[in-house]
Amino acid sequence: MKRIDGGVTAPKGFLAAGLWAGIKKEKKDMALVYSTVPCTGAGVFTTNVVKAAPVKWDKLVTEQSPYVQAVVVNSGVANACTGAEGYQYCVDMAQTAADQLGIAKEAVFVASTGVIGRQLPMEKIKAGIKSLVPALADGREAAACAAAAIMTTDTKPKEIAVEVELDGKTVTVAGMCKGSGMIHPNMATMLCFVTTDAAISHTMLQKALSDDVADTFNMISVDGDTSTNDSVLLLANGQAGNAEITAEGEAYDCFCAALHKVMTELSKMIAGDGEGATCLFMAHVKGAESKAQARTLAKSVICSSLTKAAVFGHDANWGRILCAMGYSGAQFDPEKVDIWLTSSAGSLKIVENGTDTGYSEEFATEILSQEEVTAVCDVKMGEFEAVAYGCDLTYDYVRINGDYRS
Amino acid sequence: MKRIDGGVTAPKGFLAAGLWAGIKKEKKDMALVYSTVPCTGAGVFTTNVVKAAPVKWDKLVTEQSPYVQAVVVNSGVANACTGAEGYQYCVDMAQTAADQLGIAKEAVFVASTGVIGRQLPMEKIKAGIKSLVPALADGREAAACAAAAIMTTDTKPKEIAVEVELDGKTVTVAGMCKGSGMIHPNMATMLCFVTTDAAISHTMLQKALSDDVADTFNMISVDGDTSTNDSVLLLANGQAGNAEITAEGEAYDCFCAALHKVMTELSKMIAGDGEGATCLFMAHVKGAESKAQARTLAKSVICSSLTKAAVFGHDANWGRILCAMGYSGAQFDPEKVDIWLTSSAGSLKIVENGTDTGYSEEFATEILSQEEVTAVCDVKMGEFEAVAYGCDLTYDYVRINGDYRS
Repeated sequence: MKRIDGGVTAPKGFLAAGLWAGIKKEKKDMALVYSTVPCTGAGVFTTNVVKAAPVKWDKLVTEQSPYVQAVVVNSGVANACTGAEGYQYCVDMAQTAADQLGIAKEAVFVASTGVIGRQLPMEKIKAGIKSLVPALADGREAAACAAAAIMTTDTKPKEIAVEVELDGKTVTVAGMCKGSGMIHPNMATMLCFVTTDAAISHTMLQKALSDDVADTFNMISVDGDTSTNDSVLLLANGQAGNAEITAEGEAYDCFCAALHKVMTELSKMIAGDGEGATCLFMAHVKGAESKAQARTLAKSVICSSLTKAAVFGHDANWGRILCAMGYSGAQFDPEKVDIWLTSSAGSLKIVENGTDTGYSEEFATEILSQEEVTAVCDVKMGEFEAVAYGCDLTYDYVRINGDYRS
Repeated sequence: MKRIDGGVTAPKGFLAAGLWAGIKKEKKDMALVYSTVPCTGAGVFTTNVVKAAPVKWDKLVTEQSPYVQAVVVNSGVANACTGAEGYQYCVDMAQTAADQLGIAKEAVFVASTGVIGRQLPMEKIKAGIKSLVPALADGREAAACAAAAIMTTDTKPKEIAVEVELDGKTVTVAGMCKGSGMIHPNMATMLCFVTTDAAISHTMLQKALSDDVADTFNMISVDGDTSTNDSVLLLANGQAGNAEITAEGEAYDCFCAALHKVMTELSKMIAGDGEGATCLFMAHVKGAESKAQARTLAKSVICSSLTKAAVFGHDANWGRILCAMGYSGAQFDPEKVDIWLTSSAGSLKIVENGTDTGYSEEFATEILSQEEVTAVCDVKMGEFEAVAYGCDLTYDYVRINGDYRS
């Protein structure tokens, strides 16, 4: 597997565009991703009872459409809690894109992100779509424009592309995503779009996606708030020329490894760019007796406000880590737990069998001062492990969310 | 029922003291509550797998001791994650108090709060206990000293007392508590001590306490972190002279009403004094189809970081409230929900059937600018309701927890 420079246009046959349609004040706010040939589509969506209109539409497309070919996205307004009127606007978005592209509206995924409760400004949206279609292009720049256009409070665009060999053919998997606040995915995260030129059946594509989110997007949390708009959409257009993957086996595993790399790196980008964050904070739980236990423990640590504030303060306050494991709902013996802090500055064992190792606070602070920090927690019960992705809790998180709408 | 000025010494036969023993830098850090006669004791404790040494001790006392007569408390060090050594120190605390008071150590509840992972400074603790015993007194001042001594990041002491008539006798129920961070009780909250001179059997006392926490302390959250030290302890010494309550009925209900008033007011004091908080933020869910559903929905709203930050910013961002209800795990129809904001400034319906009412943002901001704010959410499914108690999320929460230990 090889990581390459590129975004959603890296796989063969994918075009993209991003522009400012006037929904947000000054920043790009609409994106379009389009495949020159029909794609197999898969999706995973928020488990929030309150589902945005585009989530309802995309679920229908995923389950019922024979193929998909485009994704149209706006940022600035989430089209959530907007009733029947909002749903009609969502369908209108799909219809407008379909008309401009000359495809069926059922082949168009729609995604929205931004403020909840407001209606979409449909004149601007329709005009935006009409400008997006002629702007579609392949290449690095077009992908970057699309990645920029889906951002809200994100401080940087989030893109990745990797290549793998399948049947002697080069298969590319690429993705972009946005997400910075209201991040506590449960089946999916804010918005993520993955493109690939692999040939793969709908069943295997959906399986690959659904299985992988459990270890990637579902292991992120910025603030414990599960969004109404969470969606991960995956489009595969078969242009790589590999023999279609229709069952588990070597080719499927190879594709899944590439997908996992893309989804893991995008997950880390989301967590590390969490609202107000100064660092990516990961919890790596080892020695668990089941995968589920490892995930529960890891996620509880990165969700703890007290732990996150301590990481911001570069304070090795390990009692908060052990405390968060303790209230996670998972059973373990706290008096057997070892905890290390690791980062590019080094690794330090701070807890052994549930009590303080008498470590150097100075070195711990140095480790905690890096841009990526991991707490490794060994519960000594078995062979399973999991990693969860979070960030620190800072003044800026409060600032950003205290006056988000003003 | 009548609220009176007073703290834990208000019920007949209870003495208290609080002083500085040198555990914290300059503030009072040890308290003692003592009944001149043996009491029936009840307790509810943290569900965190990681339990502090005093929680383990107090569970034994609650379950096995024929009576209790004293509570000895220190703040500054939590005596959690301290292994066998820490447990022995906890027993030593009970033994020292028992020796000084001339009672059995099994009649002494112990409570600790503060930093996790450090051992208690036992010389200071023992000297503190020896000074506390001669300082024991009844009256307002003694109770206030005890309430001050159990504080950590609390900005104010938390006390209450009420009187009710039982069999023509005046029964007093009083309490003090501490708690400001690591507040997300699940069976109890940080530390709360309730005294009463009611005569009531152990079984009924424990039942009254266990039933009441479900609607009071278990409905608070400051930061989603369930502490290792959560304990609510209740001592009843029978000095009021009422006929002993041994079964459900009018007298039991009357006692429960007084207990509920004390526990509710203390819960509101904890939430309103949450670390960094500028206001008490409550969610009142109505029209639920079960009590459990109402509690789940209400608690999810006051736990949402995004909602809490919006309250801090006086921003009526109702999408976050509805979103938090949506990911709570409870089922409901978001398109039937009505939401009001209420405070001393007035009441305003901001959502009707899941969408915006076109309310005045200016008036909403005025409502949100008060010291106590409630979001009333009607899900229109049935007759059950619940209130949850939280606070806003502020810069000061981050400041306090970014460098708690330094």
